[in-house]
Amino acid sequence: MGHVSPAYSITIRLKYRDVPGALGRMTSSIGDAGGSIGAVDIVDSRDNIITRDFSVQATDVEHGEQIVKAVNALDGVDVINVSDRTFLMHLGGKIEVISRIPIKTRDDLSMAYTPGVARVCRAIADDPDASFNLTIRRNTVAVVSDGSAVLGLGNIGPRAAMPVMEGKALLFKEFAKVDAFPICLETQDVEEIIMIVKALGPTFGGINLEDISSPRCVEIEERLRAEMDIPVFHDDQHGTAVVVLAALQNALKVVGKSMDKIRVVINGAGAAGVAIAKLLLSVGVQQMVVCDRSGAIHQARIEGVNPLKTWLANHTNQEQLQGRLADVLPGADVFIGVSSAGTLHGNDIARMAVDPIVFALANPDPEITPEEASPHVRVMATGRSDYPNQINNVLCFPGLFRGLLDVRARDVNEQIKIAAAAAIAGVISENELHPDYIIPSVFDRRVATAVAETVSRVAIETGVARRGQAPRPNS
Amino acid sequence: MGHVSPAYSITIRLKYRDVPGALGRMTSSIGDAGGSIGAVDIVDSRDNIITRDFSVQATDVEHGEQIVKAVNALDGVDVINVSDRTFLMHLGGKIEVISRIPIKTRDDLSMAYTPGVARVCRAIADDPDASFNLTIRRNTVAVVSDGSAVLGLGNIGPRAAMPVMEGKALLFKEFAKVDAFPICLETQDVEEIIMIVKALGPTFGGINLEDISSPRCVEIEERLRAEMDIPVFHDDQHGTAVVVLAALQNALKVVGKSMDKIRVVINGAGAAGVAIAKLLLSVGVQQMVVCDRSGAIHQARIEGVNPLKTWLANHTNQEQLQGRLADVLPGADVFIGVSSAGTLHGNDIARMAVDPIVFALANPDPEITPEEASPHVRVMATGRSDYPNQINNVLCFPGLFRGLLDVRARDVNEQIKIAAAAAIAGVISENELHPDYIIPSVFDRRVATAVAETVSRVAIETGVARRGQAPRPNS
Repeated sequence: MGHVSPAYSITIRLKYRDVPGALGRMTSSIGDAGGSIGAVDIVDSRDNIITRDFSVQATDVEHGEQIVKAVNALDGVDVINVSDRTFLMHLGGKIEVISRIPIKTRDDLSMAYTPGVARVCRAIADDPDASFNLTIRRNTVAVVSDGSAVLGLGNIGPRAAMPVMEGKALLFKEFAKVDAFPICLETQDVEEIIMIVKALGPTFGGINLEDISSPRCVEIEERLRAEMDIPVFHDDQHGTAVVVLAALQNALKVVGKSMDKIRVVINGAGAAGVAIAKLLLSVGVQQMVVCDRSGAIHQARIEGVNPLKTWLANHTNQEQLQGRLADVLPGADVFIGVSSAGTLHGNDIARMAVDPIVFALANPDPEITPEEASPHVRVMATGRSDYPNQINNVLCFPGLFRGLLDVRARDVNEQIKIAAAAAIAGVISENELHPDYIIPSVFDRRVATAVAETVSRVAIETGVARRGQAPRPNS
Repeated sequence: MGHVSPAYSITIRLKYRDVPGALGRMTSSIGDAGGSIGAVDIVDSRDNIITRDFSVQATDVEHGEQIVKAVNALDGVDVINVSDRTFLMHLGGKIEVISRIPIKTRDDLSMAYTPGVARVCRAIADDPDASFNLTIRRNTVAVVSDGSAVLGLGNIGPRAAMPVMEGKALLFKEFAKVDAFPICLETQDVEEIIMIVKALGPTFGGINLEDISSPRCVEIEERLRAEMDIPVFHDDQHGTAVVVLAALQNALKVVGKSMDKIRVVINGAGAAGVAIAKLLLSVGVQQMVVCDRSGAIHQARIEGVNPLKTWLANHTNQEQLQGRLADVLPGADVFIGVSSAGTLHGNDIARMAVDPIVFALANPDPEITPEEASPHVRVMATGRSDYPNQINNVLCFPGLFRGLLDVRARDVNEQIKIAAAAAIAGVISENELHPDYIIPSVFDRRVATAVAETVSRVAIETGVARRGQAPRPNS
């Protein structure tokens, strides 16, 4: 049985006669069924009949049902109601649009709306870049998806993708005070998506693409970057790559190796795997092999169907190694998995170079569990919050867009991504570095600030900023 | 010289030596220049030197500059700074996207984002209509424009249109707690706009089209209404028509006439004029002539270029009257102007039927001023807040969309619009009715509630609602 999780948190309302030992029998019953009890609140108490709400974490939906069944089987205890806290939290959506200014009087109205607004409109018509100052563009990003590759759920469509994009908007605001608005599109046609996102440009200061399937996502992002005058960033590709690079920089310090000397094996040739490969090449990694389900990608294998794999065959695997993951892994310094659970084993790691680094990023279950890897590995990271070294995109995207918006950037280029990775890595000082602490916590508030400042600076240095300097914090 | 207005409100910061009479000289100077002083605040006072902020309303930008010049000419007074309150209010945009739920701990994150969010996504994938309950669709409307016909400013483009759409979003929230998000599109191609708005459908519970030029707006709205499963409403057409109908219903009560007996002349054959004509026909008006710049629209005049005018020629002007506005107005009971300033004169009204009703809705300056009309007219309305009987779309759209969202409506049909007009009119009781009080104030909070309740009910009755009843207020 897996871990209990707040993601499977239910509130069970129980009514029972208050006899000695009644509460103990109920909590024991929930505990025996494997439930973890959080808050217990009294809802009502009269005539010796008590109604209580028990917040209980389970491991999954079925487990929650078993817990309810167990407690319902107790004599003298009635289950009045069971509510699912995750669904309750989602009722009516997770974000809200509010006014930044008061609209209580006619005077307010005549400045914020007609007739006063007409002067502001005219100022922007005279100088379109004034829209970065006088409209929500200054602080607003679109989170755009077509619902074609949502989390691990696959092509569930735009309606079902919305809760993820709303969640992303929450993170933008919470971590970097960026206003983000979810846009889920009822089309999965590449040309239509490109046309639509371009047309949305005047409303936003940046575009965060999300959960679009590979290899379509690469073409969509590249075209939009080339054709729009605001930054376009596909988080599943580059957000992951930036955070992996940050973690790898610190991991290499821990083991005392350098980028240009290591051999890296990446398992998974989707959007994230390819973006990681490209970013690592651009910071000097020389030896790299990328594997997909069929094994190492090399030129003889490629028939040209997937442009990403053709690119990988031509730019990685210098020795043109063939074979399965287990065949190319021996001697590697670094394994990076963006594939699926169970694709790596302890004895694979045992045959890697000394002080092996393993990033097992498959979600929700990593390529190998830290427990199985532990006898063999020196530095290990996963995508999970319940192990050390969580590699999570939220370390990148809020601060990245904060920095881009602050200087009204036109683009997000390779130098900016590399600098963002260095900023994330740099939050951990040399003497704090440890095999279990190569990447900051997602709740480390220093990260977004450090990333934003670096990104603003490099955007200016590389000539993609409209402003010569970022505003002072809180100005 | 026109009225001073908060739309032209400036804050002048003055520094002066505090000698007897100094403040009086400054306020007199501002007053002599025609400025109207609001707040006067002390900013700093030391060594007998005082710095004060004067909030001053002017009639326009040039007038503001004249006031500053006048006060700057005073001996011993320095103008330190002049700020334009309307522009200050627009810095960074007028709306903000915030979280409806706390995201402070890992547990919050694991319910609102991964892994918990996956269950919510799956529930919507299984039942797409659940998106109306579990995402922002439940309460969110897009305010969509292409910037082709913004206020009286014309085709100023999508960037310059944003402040208006943001203002509209404020009004949606303030008057009906509807979350609205502005979307300004970088295309003016009818087919592209239709394709884009359809693709945006999964994100929203309704679409408010805004400031799209005529006759394109009519085709765009009709196609989207037919092809989308959420309500689509072009406010410039139907919002105006609904409020005009509401005002006309009450005006007719004041003069004791009925819809089926009156003769109506509409001046202006743009989107609003045509929508007003259609709505009045659908509530029983029999005799109607619509004029454009060339005069009365009749079949012999139409060469088929503009489909709206063809429609008008075929559905109005039963007697096929020809001639200019002044030729067809004599004997009319009602004049409705959606044209431009100065197109109607007192002696035109003098030749209308007894108890003439004049709605002069051109903005910012009406077809005829109430001052000039007053000797001849019985009931007069304008679009302005500084005369009685302001006809303003804000009386309609917030409550309309509140009512549509509450029952998850698929469409907004003719019956709903007619009912919304009746609800607005009904806010004024029979014994309150008066020639100067035929339409409620835009700040009358009863209006949105009355409109919402009626709209929900009629949406259910006419079979366009997904829900059988609206939620209780505040539930």
